[in-house]
Amino acid sequence: MSFLDHIDHANNWNPADFVALAVEGHVLGRIRRDRVAILGGFPDTFVIAADHVALAPGLDDFASRSAALDEVLAALRATGMFPGWRGEFYPAMPEWGDAPLFQVERAACPWLGIRSWGVHVNGFVRKRDGIHMWIARRSRDKPSYPGMLDNMVAGGQPIGLGLVENVVKECGEEAAIPPDLARRAAAVGAISYCHQLDEGLKPDQQFCFDLQLPADFVPRAADGEVESFALLPIADVARIVRRGFDFKFNCNLVVIDFLIRHGLIDADGEPDYVALCMGLHRAP
Amino acid sequence: MSFLDHIDHANNWNPADFVALAVEGHVLGRIRRDRVAILGGFPDTFVIAADHVALAPGLDDFASRSAALDEVLAALRATGMFPGWRGEFYPAMPEWGDAPLFQVERAACPWLGIRSWGVHVNGFVRKRDGIHMWIARRSRDKPSYPGMLDNMVAGGQPIGLGLVENVVKECGEEAAIPPDLARRAAAVGAISYCHQLDEGLKPDQQFCFDLQLPADFVPRAADGEVESFALLPIADVARIVRRGFDFKFNCNLVVIDFLIRHGLIDADGEPDYVALCMGLHRAP
Repeated sequence: MSFLDHIDHANNWNPADFVALAVEGHVLGRIRRDRVAILGGFPDTFVIAADHVALAPGLDDFASRSAALDEVLAALRATGMFPGWRGEFYPAMPEWGDAPLFQVERAACPWLGIRSWGVHVNGFVRKRDGIHMWIARRSRDKPSYPGMLDNMVAGGQPIGLGLVENVVKECGEEAAIPPDLARRAAAVGAISYCHQLDEGLKPDQQFCFDLQLPADFVPRAADGEVESFALLPIADVARIVRRGFDFKFNCNLVVIDFLIRHGLIDADGEPDYVALCMGLHRAP
Repeated sequence: MSFLDHIDHANNWNPADFVALAVEGHVLGRIRRDRVAILGGFPDTFVIAADHVALAPGLDDFASRSAALDEVLAALRATGMFPGWRGEFYPAMPEWGDAPLFQVERAACPWLGIRSWGVHVNGFVRKRDGIHMWIARRSRDKPSYPGMLDNMVAGGQPIGLGLVENVVKECGEEAAIPPDLARRAAAVGAISYCHQLDEGLKPDQQFCFDLQLPADFVPRAADGEVESFALLPIADVARIVRRGFDFKFNCNLVVIDFLIRHGLIDADGEPDYVALCMGLHRAP
């Protein structure tokens, strides 16, 4: 398969399957058409219109919206939905940098089609023969994408935490990287995609960080999220991406972005070069 | 002004001002609505439909389309249009990597709203105090953007030339950079914008190259395109971009892309961070 196939797969959504969740004139979420009736059972929180879903009148600020959603999601959770419930809140914002219009349980974001943000850290070492990249294998007992390959460190962006703070926290938790070393990670861009899956929709954006590591540093699986780490020549990482779906879907995009930024994709030899650059930054 | 203002300025076009030039079902150009009547004077080449302009029946391959356009453009040129005529052909392609559907004189591309591609080379030096960037000042007698700041080397992408070949050629012509040194330039991405100006429309895409130069190398204005070069600390370059319109409009985007890729924009401190990453890669 090609690099572009990964971008197409990450953007596999069918807009016809979804109904917009509109808040203050913004599309804040996208709910699967066949699930809208479930929300109709909560008329104190949702108004089901012909072509969209809105929040009920009176839910007009952060606190009231967040509390109302909390109640609905708790009721749905009691029926067995949202198995990966975390008790962790994500901000719901039209765009990154906007004020959050409400907060919502992380595990419910795909079901509501609410965009989430996260950080992905490319851990790499410069050797005499070029760049080598640290790759993580996800634990077999993770609820999502068990056993798949992942970037060295990655994590969702909860409300109220800075991006670098989150990088430092996740680097410590997932890979036992000391804070002083983790703080050297540099923000080098962000990717965007809109991925449809059984849970719903992930119209997500990921901040990409590059962290050059000393040759003798070895990350260590710390919190059970990661099964193991491996340091691979970057050409091998590129080959794994091209080979198929060894990586969790969005990690392929983070690797492709890394390859482009580090001059490792030959613009003359890759006919999809521009399509890749644009495809990594697609608006839903 | 903000970095995002530069992206908005580069994407200042008003779609309502333009009529699509449709070829083989693709929008290959966009012609200003008030100029469509001019093309109506060439019925052997153009068919003016209600909502678009098409090529005349029979113009169904590269050679016939190119020849017909050549004839029209020569006639228009005789009336004083296209002052910057170069005798250099650009490929007209729906997307980079597609087969060209015709070729067209470079100077006529904005008038027809045909996308063009180019290469921009960030020349930089790593010093103890960080990155310094070579900036060019365009000659005062250049037909477009005279006297404005520019990336170290930049040039349009003519038909039939490889990207790296073009980089090497332009590096030699504009900055007297020897081929062996120029060949070290690495493709590190591409930016996209759609800019409306008096001439018409530039829905263009630029390949960005990074060329790290030895500390003792000094580029030299070689062919009269550039008045002078200056090596500036990257923070000063960023300040110049933020200050206003010292740079030619699209060079600001190339610098912003460089700043992002090199970890020089603080993702926590720049509320537009994601908007910048997406804005540099906007489809028209």
